[in-house]
Amino acid sequence: MGNIFGHLFRVTTFGESHGGGVGVVIDGCPPRLEISEADVQLDLDRRRPGQSKITTSREETDACEIVSGVFEGKTLGTPITILVRNKDARSQDYDEMVTKFRPSHADATYEAKYGIRNWKGGGRSSARETIGRVAAGAIAKKILKQVADMEIIGYVKRIKNLEGVIDPSTVTLDKVENNIVRCPDEKTAKKMINLIDQTRRDNNSIGGVVECVARQVPKGLGQPVFDKLEADLAKGMMSLPASKGFEIGSGFSGTLLTGSEHNDEFYIDKNGGIRTITNRSGGIQGGISNGENIIIRVAFKPTATIGKEQKTVNRMGEETTLTAKGRHDPCVLPRAVPMVESMVALVLCDHLLRQQGQCGVI
Amino acid sequence: MGNIFGHLFRVTTFGESHGGGVGVVIDGCPPRLEISEADVQLDLDRRRPGQSKITTSREETDACEIVSGVFEGKTLGTPITILVRNKDARSQDYDEMVTKFRPSHADATYEAKYGIRNWKGGGRSSARETIGRVAAGAIAKKILKQVADMEIIGYVKRIKNLEGVIDPSTVTLDKVENNIVRCPDEKTAKKMINLIDQTRRDNNSIGGVVECVARQVPKGLGQPVFDKLEADLAKGMMSLPASKGFEIGSGFSGTLLTGSEHNDEFYIDKNGGIRTITNRSGGIQGGISNGENIIIRVAFKPTATIGKEQKTVNRMGEETTLTAKGRHDPCVLPRAVPMVESMVALVLCDHLLRQQGQCGVI
Amino acid sequence: MGNIFGHLFRVTTFGESHGGGVGVVIDGCPPRLEISEADVQLDLDRRRPGQSKITTSREETDACEIVSGVFEGKTLGTPITILVRNKDARSQDYDEMVTKFRPSHADATYEAKYGIRNWKGGGRSSARETIGRVAAGAIAKKILKQVADMEIIGYVKRIKNLEGVIDPSTVTLDKVENNIVRCPDEKTAKKMINLIDQTRRDNNSIGGVVECVARQVPKGLGQPVFDKLEADLAKGMMSLPASKGFEIGSGFSGTLLTGSEHNDEFYIDKNGGIRTITNRSGGIQGGISNGENIIIRVAFKPTATIGKEQKTVNRMGEETTLTAKGRHDPCVLPRAVPMVESMVALVLCDHLLRQQGQCGVI
Amino acid sequence: MGNIFGHLFRVTTFGESHGGGVGVVIDGCPPRLEISEADVQLDLDRRRPGQSKITTSREETDACEIVSGVFEGKTLGTPITILVRNKDARSQDYDEMVTKFRPSHADATYEAKYGIRNWKGGGRSSARETIGRVAAGAIAKKILKQVADMEIIGYVKRIKNLEGVIDPSTVTLDKVENNIVRCPDEKTAKKMINLIDQTRRDNNSIGGVVECVARQVPKGLGQPVFDKLEADLAKGMMSLPASKGFEIGSGFSGTLLTGSEHNDEFYIDKNGGIRTITNRSGGIQGGISNGENIIIRVAFKPTATIGKEQKTVNRMGEETTLTAKGRHDPCVLPRAVPMVESMVALVLCDHLLRQQGQCGVI
Repeated sequence: MGNIFGHLFRVTTFGESHGGGVGVVIDGCPPRLEISEADVQLDLDRRRPGQSKITTSREETDACEIVSGVFEGKTLGTPITILVRNKDARSQDYDEMVTKFRPSHADATYEAKYGIRNWKGGGRSSARETIGRVAAGAIAKKILKQVADMEIIGYVKRIKNLEGVIDPSTVTLDKVENNIVRCPDEKTAKKMINLIDQTRRDNNSIGGVVECVARQVPKGLGQPVFDKLEADLAKGMMSLPASKGFEIGSGFSGTLLTGSEHNDEFYIDKNGGIRTITNRSGGIQGGISNGENIIIRVAFKPTATIGKEQKTVNRMGEETTLTAKGRHDPCVLPRAVPMVESMVALVLCDHLLRQQGQCGVI
Repeated sequence: MGNIFGHLFRVTTFGESHGGGVGVVIDGCPPRLEISEADVQLDLDRRRPGQSKITTSREETDACEIVSGVFEGKTLGTPITILVRNKDARSQDYDEMVTKFRPSHADATYEAKYGIRNWKGGGRSSARETIGRVAAGAIAKKILKQVADMEIIGYVKRIKNLEGVIDPSTVTLDKVENNIVRCPDEKTAKKMINLIDQTRRDNNSIGGVVECVARQVPKGLGQPVFDKLEADLAKGMMSLPASKGFEIGSGFSGTLLTGSEHNDEFYIDKNGGIRTITNRSGGIQGGISNGENIIIRVAFKPTATIGKEQKTVNRMGEETTLTAKGRHDPCVLPRAVPMVESMVALVLCDHLLRQQGQCGVI
Repeated sequence: MGNIFGHLFRVTTFGESHGGGVGVVIDGCPPRLEISEADVQLDLDRRRPGQSKITTSREETDACEIVSGVFEGKTLGTPITILVRNKDARSQDYDEMVTKFRPSHADATYEAKYGIRNWKGGGRSSARETIGRVAAGAIAKKILKQVADMEIIGYVKRIKNLEGVIDPSTVTLDKVENNIVRCPDEKTAKKMINLIDQTRRDNNSIGGVVECVARQVPKGLGQPVFDKLEADLAKGMMSLPASKGFEIGSGFSGTLLTGSEHNDEFYIDKNGGIRTITNRSGGIQGGISNGENIIIRVAFKPTATIGKEQKTVNRMGEETTLTAKGRHDPCVLPRAVPMVESMVALVLCDHLLRQQGQCGVI
Repeated sequence: MGNIFGHLFRVTTFGESHGGGVGVVIDGCPPRLEISEADVQLDLDRRRPGQSKITTSREETDACEIVSGVFEGKTLGTPITILVRNKDARSQDYDEMVTKFRPSHADATYEAKYGIRNWKGGGRSSARETIGRVAAGAIAKKILKQVADMEIIGYVKRIKNLEGVIDPSTVTLDKVENNIVRCPDEKTAKKMINLIDQTRRDNNSIGGVVECVARQVPKGLGQPVFDKLEADLAKGMMSLPASKGFEIGSGFSGTLLTGSEHNDEFYIDKNGGIRTITNRSGGIQGGISNGENIIIRVAFKPTATIGKEQKTVNRMGEETTLTAKGRHDPCVLPRAVPMVESMVALVLCDHLLRQQGQCGVI
């Protein structure tokens, strides 16, 4: 009952890492939008494993099939189902996991909650689940682009203590995709890649921060009280695997300023529009977009799966140790970028339709 | 359509800062729970203005009435409505706001969204709206206490750059309520109070961080995928007025560790229970509670209302200036503590019922 | 958790027949709609007890207060709360009900479900709850009128075996309100009034059928698959107290026709619009409005409260008898008319906003 | 946004009659339930075309695949996805439908709503969509059986004017499945079969009434106010293709009785349980199950597709005629039986979990 997201643009993801496949059903997509499997595949390829030397070497093609909701290349307004089949290679890597719980994974909590779990890989808690989100996000992005020329660009802002210098107002997708770590500050990117590579060789893992900007967002999206735009963004981000923190605009560091330093004063731009001189609010005030760039940051912890021996316990309540086999990401950040973008797109698209629903009638 | 929170324990808040009143309807409360207006009033008094020299000097008694859902002192299982009447004193303080937008407030965005707003005070975006949340949270806390002896304790962790040293495992409500800033580190609390007092005299404002711990949370609460416990907590926190960031467990600083440093290794405790040696996960793994303390932090920006002249614009699209009149909090943190606790309680109570619903049958 | 209705125009009703009051919160109302307590009071007066000699002689004025969401006579887009206070007169009539269950009432089932109930009157299952629906329905009607000149007219079609001859295409509110039984066939109305009057004197009760027409409904409202317009209408009607059946268009009697007799053939009207020659579909095809009049009928059982001795049981599991005291309606139909209209309005208004949300963007 | 049903046991169906396939995602299924494709296939075979001489002669095997949510034969508590592939034979039968609207079908309304439709067959409005419901219903039935030995049995009560005599208290699945029209009154069943057969030869169609009983339903299921059990049942039934009416218990004919004739008096049974002497309420009072048999009836119109020439219009706004080609059911009733059962099962299962959620904690 927690696998559904959104109120009008409503997505349901399904599937475990091992089993028939993973995917998504989108209920509420506007009709007559041109959409193809190629559109979706683009973003799926940005999140898939095996795309570079700093991601897991597991090779998954993750080819998608649009099962329903699209007819002669256009959305019907009916549920769009996108399915990606699993390829259950090397499940012998998971043999130990039949009984042992991996530290800082969801094995033990799923077992506690349900009394059962798919021990072949991460099951439902696998990052493989995000295929459904990224597929839906690709469609949401297209709607946002078509309706208001909105664009959503995520990038790696920090890996461990290596922080890039990036201007969210001007960053482009090309710049982001220009290197395998997805940090558009090329100099820092190189250092990041080296650090990740070294970490992989150490059988260890690292984390960092993804930043994401949404530009050309119309004023008025977001709802008082609980469904504030930043609240839904926070929920979206904190629902991603491995995320530990969320901030918008000035975020935690904004708490070090005084009100007179922090407030975004208004001015009238040359087109007569109301704008703010600064953007410490991060594009949202009182839960509603103000037309400035929406800027958020998400903290991702170091990958829990590491090739080092760790203390753990098993289902029988005994203490033991575990050393992860198989291939895994030494750092989830580069692949997390399209996931973050997708969740931002899902939130904005849902709120776009909601705003149209409540305020577009009278 | 964004004024409803929760899936089974579902609360709807209503009301503007000026008008008939504010309150909440709780749909889905378990029956036969003893509840009285006094239970609710306790937490309302912790959030009300005028409670100390470092909060706004506006005196609001915020006396609550239980309008429905309770019969002979017990919940009926039907909607519980709690109403607090407004007292519209001094609305002349708001005369300028008929046309001028206060910087970093929701005036301009509400106007953009709805084409209308209640300019008497903050309207729906006023912190006064949180009365409904705190009232509902008081009931949620009682359920959590009764079902599993759960307790939720929030406190001020940091004011600007003054950070308290507090052990979430042992902190008590008494310690928190022992000083007016609600920081259970008495030494730091004194400095905080002085800083807030000085800031008030400077007609300025400051922000900080509230930390909150939930103890004795049963294993198994939280839902994959989107309704992860930390995702719903993040949404709850980021829906509070003035919040700019959220983290759980190691949060943003956890991104500076390696996987081997960050992972929470398991052990078997003396009762045969599965526990973790460390708690960098903050009590939640894979979106599901693991029985350890849930620990979150919320960043609150400096209060937007300040007694200094600021640049702004008006409804007619002209640039102008504004100096806030009226009484306001130089720092929202002390009053934010019960708000944070309430949102944590609402999330946990909802997930407790959801867990019972899905997994309590077979 | 079952006290909320609608997806975008979302209403939550609250309150028991005895206690602080009853009312409704409307979340999602479009902004800038002119609305006053007088608008709402009109329909409340049509549903209130004591309005004529054939309704219960209980006198309740049911004066409403708009507590929130309206500012200077216009909706703010924020939750609209409407409150009607209870007047707890004559609760001694209910003394026997502390322990005895009234046949065909909800006393025993509430007790079974919740282990507690408000035995003073019907509690939450009282028809008094419909005050909230009728108040919300009055606002929904106003939106429908303003947006598309839609009108919704309900009337008594049948009382027991007395059936009126009424043309749904031309019936007017004036005609309906022209007599106290709300049957616009004056000749039959007189017979109905006599029958109800006789039934009251017999300490008995009777039922019947309310028909309701919605005219000028735009094409395209309603959603495949589960939220078909007739499905949501059916839910709305069957959620009304005492309703036992629902039909649309040809309804049950349509099952006696063949396909060639039943199908609504198409033609092009003088404006080039697509119309149907007949309207056995009742204005909805495949769950979506087709622009023809929406026509539904609702069966209401005879009032369960009667002044005759009946066999029953008490909380202690003993058999006993009960003779209802107090004043009650010998026939709910005249007062059910505004309830039916309100539920139709809530459904149409919600689907209007939903249609605008999904299909109004691209 | 109308393709999702249920609150805790939440199903999303997807798919058009022509395209990749149809199916369902079930979110919220209790864990550790044994479930196999064979369990689901049983009911799918009862609804599939081509199963007898009185259904359409289209042969569809409708073999299902469980894509996710089941591991080693048991439910995981995660979303269960069931997929049935389409076989797009004979779409040339639909060539005329590219432009022409079939009378009393959803062609014209989908076009009006979305500005696009899948003209190959019924698209999303095809009865083929009910595959997803029946698959989910099979799982719901299993839960209900396991938790409380509940059983749900539907049957054809009437075909046109031929009405069977059936005792809902004793009817069995075997009796229902004993003939191809699914009417457990064998004598009437024969007449029904002959009538359907004759109608098919006449290129015409007929309708009727399905009755369904749910036995051993625990007391206490259903929610005041809007989510009354009969309200959700009505919604479920009226969301089925071709349904035009719904009634519970005494239904429309109950309006011909007086209150003293209609009320269900109480008695204490030999086990000390509270029971009603009669069951005109149909097992539900005040929206909540009372432990008696739940009995509902659903009116299904004659199939809209007939092999006779009918007046219609096309997309270009011209009047024309249409004679349906292809194979179709002369009467949907026999195949509607498992659909009705499934919707009853979905409603009961959802309310079982909801009751457990709200009232199973304290």
